[in-house]
Amino acid sequence: MNTSNYPDDTRRTITGLSNPTVKALRALRDTRLRKREKRFMAEGLRLLTDARTTGLLPRTLVMAETRAPHPLLTALEADVVANGGEILEVSEAVLAKITGKDNPQAVAGVFDEFDTSLARVDRASAPIWLVAQALRDPGNLGTMLRTGDAVGAGGLILIDDCADPFSVEAVRASMGAVFTQKVARARWDEFISWLRAGPRQLVAASLRDAVPYRGAPYQSPCFLMVGNESRGLPEEYELACDLRVTMPMRGRADSLNAAVAGAVLAYEVLAALEI
Amino acid sequence: MNTSNYPDDTRRTITGLSNPTVKALRALRDTRLRKREKRFMAEGLRLLTDARTTGLLPRTLVMAETRAPHPLLTALEADVVANGGEILEVSEAVLAKITGKDNPQAVAGVFDEFDTSLARVDRASAPIWLVAQALRDPGNLGTMLRTGDAVGAGGLILIDDCADPFSVEAVRASMGAVFTQKVARARWDEFISWLRAGPRQLVAASLRDAVPYRGAPYQSPCFLMVGNESRGLPEEYELACDLRVTMPMRGRADSLNAAVAGAVLAYEVLAALEI
Repeated sequence: MNTSNYPDDTRRTITGLSNPTVKALRALRDTRLRKREKRFMAEGLRLLTDARTTGLLPRTLVMAETRAPHPLLTALEADVVANGGEILEVSEAVLAKITGKDNPQAVAGVFDEFDTSLARVDRASAPIWLVAQALRDPGNLGTMLRTGDAVGAGGLILIDDCADPFSVEAVRASMGAVFTQKVARARWDEFISWLRAGPRQLVAASLRDAVPYRGAPYQSPCFLMVGNESRGLPEEYELACDLRVTMPMRGRADSLNAAVAGAVLAYEVLAALEI
Repeated sequence: MNTSNYPDDTRRTITGLSNPTVKALRALRDTRLRKREKRFMAEGLRLLTDARTTGLLPRTLVMAETRAPHPLLTALEADVVANGGEILEVSEAVLAKITGKDNPQAVAGVFDEFDTSLARVDRASAPIWLVAQALRDPGNLGTMLRTGDAVGAGGLILIDDCADPFSVEAVRASMGAVFTQKVARARWDEFISWLRAGPRQLVAASLRDAVPYRGAPYQSPCFLMVGNESRGLPEEYELACDLRVTMPMRGRADSLNAAVAGAVLAYEVLAALEI
């Protein structure tokens, strides 16, 4: 599989399930193949319109032949063509195969993966940044992106071995925030060096020498870090924080879902900074 | 399939993948069959120990032959036997088939489903209750149970057609909270009649004639309601609320993940009530 699977024709109709282009698009649902292609898929007119509004257009726009006409879809189609992209009209069966859903949305787009180097993060551009360490669930990653968008965060920095932020599941859970939030990936050492080279407050929920999360002295730019779903943050990472906060745990459990913990903290920081 | 698939023998060893008991246990991962059996499965020593601590024991305890000895497992096993339950020792392959995981935890338990009638909810027993309307994602349901446990909520009330709270995914995401939180199911009319027959404050996030969620006049018992992942709450349900609150949305999106929204509100109420 290579870029020759996406020929230059502007518009094609495909109904065969074994068509090489269909197979190439279907392969984007496999993390390993997707990473090799450096492309990802987003489904639904709403997500694609979110992307378009932020100036991002799919390289390939896949539309069901049976789609209902919609002015936003017409506008999207025109922009994709004007941008040199490709339009594929496919049967419902083909779209179902590509998206892996029985009742797929009528449209999907294939985007070039974004550059996720830490160097592209401008910390001064937002008061809040989310940081995830070894988060394994793509749904959690997508939910954190969505929360980041809601609190006006700049983006999500992925530390160590995280799930794929461009997987279908993460893109879906992000509800379009993958297009508005910056996504960066780094090893811990790289991240901490970068972080300490500028203004920052690294914050994590912790039981170690921590202050209550409400009323804690949050400062901008605030980097809110959550750890792996099973193991939490490594001790070294907790100790590297500028501020450790505790959240009430009134039940039997001693932790929250990672995306939930990040969201409760993020809304607290948003209120504290009176942004 | 009926209860004869779970014979009275106290202890059996099963290594055959096509054994009827294995098939019956495997069927608990299918929602329709699970509902007919009125049983559910929980995996892992931690969850099972949480259940045991709250006085709940599995009717059937399934253990991998290759499990490592553990004092909590020994205690659990003894309690299950003393309670008239059944112990199944199975090969790793059988456990993998039952749990649907390649690397299953070494132990799983089958519980009788709990009574989920609204009549069993004692609203005076907790200051916060979570309410989910037509929530379709079992992971979201489980996460809400987990959050409910953390904030000291009494339980989760499911309105209209929600995902199965006893599905493997929901139980897993609840991290044991399915055993500590009350779960009730009701139609909207039934719920609202019950609710209005006693002290309550029904709260939802809304854009309709709403006040900021921070500093809102929350009162105990506070029922925090979140709506369907795609459609949100029906207008009628929003209008039935005693309090409508808005949360800041600083990005392009106009909503949060349902479980996240519930958690941010729940922590706000916890702080406001100074519980």
